[in-house]
Amino acid sequence: MSEHIVKAFDDDLMAVRAKISEMGGVAEEMLSGALKSLIERNAELASSVILLDKRLDALEIEVEEMATRIIALRQPMAQDLRLLISALKLSATIERIGDLSKSTARRGIQLSKTRPAGVIASVVRMGHQALGQLSSVLDAWARRDVEEAVAVWRRDVAIDETYNSLFREVLTYMMEDPRTISIGSQLLFIAKNIERIGDHTTHVAEMIHYVETGTPLAGARPKGEPAGLETE
Amino acid sequence: MSEHIVKAFDDDLMAVRAKISEMGGVAEEMLSGALKSLIERNAELASSVILLDKRLDALEIEVEEMATRIIALRQPMAQDLRLLISALKLSATIERIGDLSKSTARRGIQLSKTRPAGVIASVVRMGHQALGQLSSVLDAWARRDVEEAVAVWRRDVAIDETYNSLFREVLTYMMEDPRTISIGSQLLFIAKNIERIGDHTTHVAEMIHYVETGTPLAGARPKGEPAGLETE
Repeated sequence: MSEHIVKAFDDDLMAVRAKISEMGGVAEEMLSGALKSLIERNAELASSVILLDKRLDALEIEVEEMATRIIALRQPMAQDLRLLISALKLSATIERIGDLSKSTARRGIQLSKTRPAGVIASVVRMGHQALGQLSSVLDAWARRDVEEAVAVWRRDVAIDETYNSLFREVLTYMMEDPRTISIGSQLLFIAKNIERIGDHTTHVAEMIHYVETGTPLAGARPKGEPAGLETE
Repeated sequence: MSEHIVKAFDDDLMAVRAKISEMGGVAEEMLSGALKSLIERNAELASSVILLDKRLDALEIEVEEMATRIIALRQPMAQDLRLLISALKLSATIERIGDLSKSTARRGIQLSKTRPAGVIASVVRMGHQALGQLSSVLDAWARRDVEEAVAVWRRDVAIDETYNSLFREVLTYMMEDPRTISIGSQLLFIAKNIERIGDHTTHVAEMIHYVETGTPLAGARPKGEPAGLETE
């Protein structure tokens, strides 16, 4: 290949990497906005989070088109092909994080007229754990930092543990006052959304490992003891 | 390309298609087993469903490796490249259907000592709706039947509607007897799993449309009125 073509190819790959980072930034903004809207019972902010999802959907299609076009035109091999194939999966994973943030914002709107402040604060604390993980994994993606990706992957166990104790807290809240059952069920689903965001963050970490090293992240990820509370 | 190479390439693509069908068959078996274990309160059957998930995980990796290898070796274009790229997404989607079936089986084990027969029957009825949709979409995949895929896609609205009424039924059940709150919360998550399986089935339908026609399924999918019950 001529130097010119190699340069153009590198630019293509960099553009895919940047587009994934852009998606990650939108997902971060959505999760952070959803959590803020929960604490502030701010339906307007929640609505703006919901709108951002369209941006994420459009970016996912862009990544797919970019990766498909580059594969067809440049016939990449080895790490380059790994990157492009992982980009397809990464964009789907980040889009899903956006969906779960949107769902959290929507459910938050339904809670915005009520005031179960204590439990909501616990849910939002868990959300900030997940947001911290998401930020770290996106940093690892941008810096191609495998070590940081593995650290994020290992830390997900803490979110699973928080989820399990939060699940019990919400059930107790519902049992103490059955009028809160409807609100409580929304809170259970919000907690579940956040737990899932944590899982998807580990998928991003796994893909970083695979792109950079060519090998899957070995061994089973440490998981929080489910204690009868199925977290899948 | 020589006739020999063309034939080998066609065989490769057929093998990917068959591997996706095989994954679909395992996912169907898992969902069907999970529903049967719920009705029969059969923890042994539920455990066998959980074990099947490992098979699905292994198949997903096989599909990924096959698709990546074919892309690298054969440099496919147009519909062939679309098929291979969609195979990566399809395998992830079907694997997710397996995860949700596994989660349903696990939660079923926790319910197996209790007897909220009426509500469980409603949940399982909804499960059979989703199972029917899954079978139809897998048929559409095997027969490359775009029309059937679109029909499946349109019918998902019925599952959303069932989910919404079931959600209310479970909440009522919990409110009538707060001792059932813990069981009820498991049932809410099982219902949610099934609703998500319905969504993933529509994603399979969308990918069939894309592979066969080269265009995305246009327009927003009809969705059940959420009635304050966020279904995302």
